[in-house]
Amino acid sequence: MDETRGAHHVQSLDRGLAVIRAFGADAPELTLSDVARTTGLTRAAARRFLLTLADLGYVRTDGKYFSLTARVLELGYAYLSSMSLPEVATPHLERLSAEVHESSSVSVLEGGDIVYVARVAVSRIMTVSINVGTRFPAYATSMGHVLLAGLPDDRLDEYLAQARLDRLTSHTLTSEAALRAELAEVRGRGWALVDQELEEGLRSVAAPIRGRDGKVVAAVNVSTHASRTSLDVVRDEMVPRLLDAAERIEADLAVAPPSRATRG
Amino acid sequence: MDETRGAHHVQSLDRGLAVIRAFGADAPELTLSDVARTTGLTRAAARRFLLTLADLGYVRTDGKYFSLTARVLELGYAYLSSMSLPEVATPHLERLSAEVHESSSVSVLEGGDIVYVARVAVSRIMTVSINVGTRFPAYATSMGHVLLAGLPDDRLDEYLAQARLDRLTSHTLTSEAALRAELAEVRGRGWALVDQELEEGLRSVAAPIRGRDGKVVAAVNVSTHASRTSLDVVRDEMVPRLLDAAERIEADLAVAPPSRATRG
Repeated sequence: MDETRGAHHVQSLDRGLAVIRAFGADAPELTLSDVARTTGLTRAAARRFLLTLADLGYVRTDGKYFSLTARVLELGYAYLSSMSLPEVATPHLERLSAEVHESSSVSVLEGGDIVYVARVAVSRIMTVSINVGTRFPAYATSMGHVLLAGLPDDRLDEYLAQARLDRLTSHTLTSEAALRAELAEVRGRGWALVDQELEEGLRSVAAPIRGRDGKVVAAVNVSTHASRTSLDVVRDEMVPRLLDAAERIEADLAVAPPSRATRG
Repeated sequence: MDETRGAHHVQSLDRGLAVIRAFGADAPELTLSDVARTTGLTRAAARRFLLTLADLGYVRTDGKYFSLTARVLELGYAYLSSMSLPEVATPHLERLSAEVHESSSVSVLEGGDIVYVARVAVSRIMTVSINVGTRFPAYATSMGHVLLAGLPDDRLDEYLAQARLDRLTSHTLTSEAALRAELAEVRGRGWALVDQELEEGLRSVAAPIRGRDGKVVAAVNVSTHASRTSLDVVRDEMVPRLLDAAERIEADLAVAPPSRATRG
């Protein structure tokens, strides 16, 4: 709904997608007025978008309240199935998780966030609630450090110029200088360790996944709880297996159809 | 892109969503001409939609090829996070999977398909590739049988009138009479067993999850391989734990915020 877009811009599509995004954890059911308020649309416009989404099966209504349907997942699913990475990585995540008895994941960088695109969760009663599609700020996660360390210098400068390094725990790196120093170290070492920078108790190691051109296209990680696994065990036992998994994923990606391996 | 829609219908939104859906496993990267052909749009229109989606960060392009970005997951994520069911069910799936050493899932009925909304996968090298958002035809799955058995008679008649009961394996129920008989049995028994009807070797049991009004809102299942688990073990050991899990999910849903528990 940016009025400065180019002449090609289809405002109705922009607005309709904003209506979908208006729903969420805090707003599973919205009235017409709620949608109008959240999106900045007039009530008449909000009504047309909601009824169109209802026609298409993406929204249901009881006449007063509107909510999204499971069909909305189709849209995200179009992305996931268009990407070879989740399919290629999942068997290797399964092996890695079985070896280290911890959940493992693959994510990509999207804006300043990491976005999970594949995950194998170990069955535990206490677990971190993460799904495909979950986002976390890159500066506070091991996969984020690996992905940022893999950026060309100008793209990293761009990221740092706009990033807000909020203190999420007492361990979070909140200064640009500290983050730059850490990323330089990650570049040299080839993996990242984040100890409770995103959440107290959460410890995670990540390694880069490179495309055939050597560019970092994704990151793979293993996460554990600080009370369960010492830093020595993370470094001596988890990191070697993590690096093996990253290598196996890269090898499989290299033989996946080219258009699907290196982009996405 | 149905020309018979009501006067409220926003055709540009309809068409823009069709452009997103044009991408997928067989078409991760599309040219302008590809998108025009798949969606039935003119090249000029396809270009406007693609450039709008690129402005919004949902599509990227190298000038010739277009592909979806991870941002598309946001749309599906809006649905998942608006639903209390995945959040409520996941800890119970984790306990269930830990008890039976098999993957467990929760799905809802959407059209004639079940759509996965929560899943806890057991780490195995050989596993069934299912994610949140995966769809399977209801008539060939245990969760589908539970969800169809929970429909009011008129809605079940509607489903059966339009369903195509394809033979997916030698075990698939492909006649309306056989499926009706099975659903009647599932209604009486309170759980469903599907033995290799969707895929050879795949065995699954499912139980309904009911809202506070007694209506079936979702299904929970456990799946195993026929070579790993006999039907006796499925019935005697898995079903009791599955029914316990369903009951615990229902109890937690009943105390979840009302708008999020019973709808979605």
